Amino acid sequence: MSDKLRVEATPLIAKKSGKLYCVGIGPGDPELLTLKALRILQTRPVIFVPEQSGSGRRQAFEIVRPYLDEAHQRIIPLHFPMTRDQDQLESAWDIATVRVVMELAGGQEAVFPVLGDPLLFGTFNYILNRLNRNYPEIEVEIVPGVTSIQAATAAAGLPLAEGRERITILPALYEEDAAKLEQTLADYDSVVLLKVGGALGRLLPILKACNRLEKAVYVERVGFPDQRIVRGQAIENLLYGKLPYFSLLIIKR
Amino acid sequence: MSDKLRVEATPLIAKKSGKLYCVGIGPGDPELLTLKALRILQTRPVIFVPEQSGSGRRQAFEIVRPYLDEAHQRIIPLHFPMTRDQDQLESAWDIATVRVVMELAGGQEAVFPVLGDPLLFGTFNYILNRLNRNYPEIEVEIVPGVTSIQAATAAAGLPLAEGRERITILPALYEEDAAKLEQTLADYDSVVLLKVGGALGRLLPILKACNRLEKAVYVERVGFPDQRIVRGQAIENLLYGKLPYFSLLIIKR
Repeated sequence: MSDKLRVEATPLIAKKSGKLYCVGIGPGDPELLTLKALRILQTRPVIFVPEQSGSGRRQAFEIVRPYLDEAHQRIIPLHFPMTRDQDQLESAWDIATVRVVMELAGGQEAVFPVLGDPLLFGTFNYILNRLNRNYPEIEVEIVPGVTSIQAATAAAGLPLAEGRERITILPALYEEDAAKLEQTLADYDSVVLLKVGGALGRLLPILKACNRLEKAVYVERVGFPDQRIVRGQAIENLLYGKLPYFSLLIIKR
Repeated sequence: MSDKLRVEATPLIAKKSGKLYCVGIGPGDPELLTLKALRILQTRPVIFVPEQSGSGRRQAFEIVRPYLDEAHQRIIPLHFPMTRDQDQLESAWDIATVRVVMELAGGQEAVFPVLGDPLLFGTFNYILNRLNRNYPEIEVEIVPGVTSIQAATAAAGLPLAEGRERITILPALYEEDAAKLEQTLADYDSVVLLKVGGALGRLLPILKACNRLEKAVYVERVGFPDQRIVRGQAIENLLYGKLPYFSLLIIKR
């Protein structure tokens, strides 16, 4: 009888694979967390925090930190390099995925907070792909967040689109074909270029050539205390300074 | 002396023009409000609620209602017709704007809750244009919200974009040129078609023609209790039923 109980109990325990919550925490302002993100962050025992290798920066963690109870919740850093080297990136995503899986073994629940929205150009996409492919038994719940695009248009008081307007969202770093970008600017009512920092010197001549700089709006580090909004011709002056990674351009028709 | 005091006091009072908060409340789930939206909704004396003329439906209000104190906050409906008649719409936006302005006179603060994000295809865009044009003295603060696009990708577990991927967001009703839509599907990694309800019969043959139906995901009323997700070929079966206004299609490469 006791043997039978043991046999039944073992597979039940082995089957429990935990649950990962990936919660979008919005673009930087701690008040732009959703009620759901806050509830989940405050009620789960393990919090993964993305950490930039080298600098040790933990941007998502700094935003949610005031809401956590570090005496009772375990904070586990996951290391991600700031690089475009695909091998290094793949390796970091592989290692982070294994770290997540190890932690969830035994039925643990954990939270992975992500700046902005988890599925819009976030590092979590790469973890999710690996979890789906290699660990389909792990349950993943994704909680959407306010994006930097929504926060930037709100801060600038700029309608992103209305009525029949068409939008396109492009990672600026990879928009290297000037003719193609000019065509895109002609075809769309709202063009959003993300992470323009390193690409602004290349983008501005194109905007000027098609007379679109006048109505362009540049927003950097939206939601953070040092947020900055620059409009029209004044954007050119930005070329004299260093621009951060979190910067975007909105070009309306 | 008393005369001098009066003269100084009058313009100060007349200058106060109130402040309007337009807060995005997310796509339907009351837990997807941000902490900021909740704080503002709970601490201002006047709440404007968009109401559909005829049906009397107040979708935004039903979502925020549990958070309000109706004994102490004034609820003021603003009427909007469900029509594509431009004259009727302009007239409704004009009247709603005047109603807002009247209420703010004397320095009142009021909140206008909006489904999703205020500046992404929301009715508030039209009010904002009128306030900026005709009442620049009124202060407007916009609080961004979680969009139905972010909520739909989260519900479907579908990365919207990663790395160098390019996104386009289109109101489906106006995508009437099949060749152009086929070209867009070829050019973009992620195509989001909004408000597909009335347009699905026209869209599906195009998706099939370019072999894109297989990976398409249809999401309707995301965040509401009757949310529905349909993937791939099964989307064709939707043509036999009535589809709601809040429905979108995500087509990834």
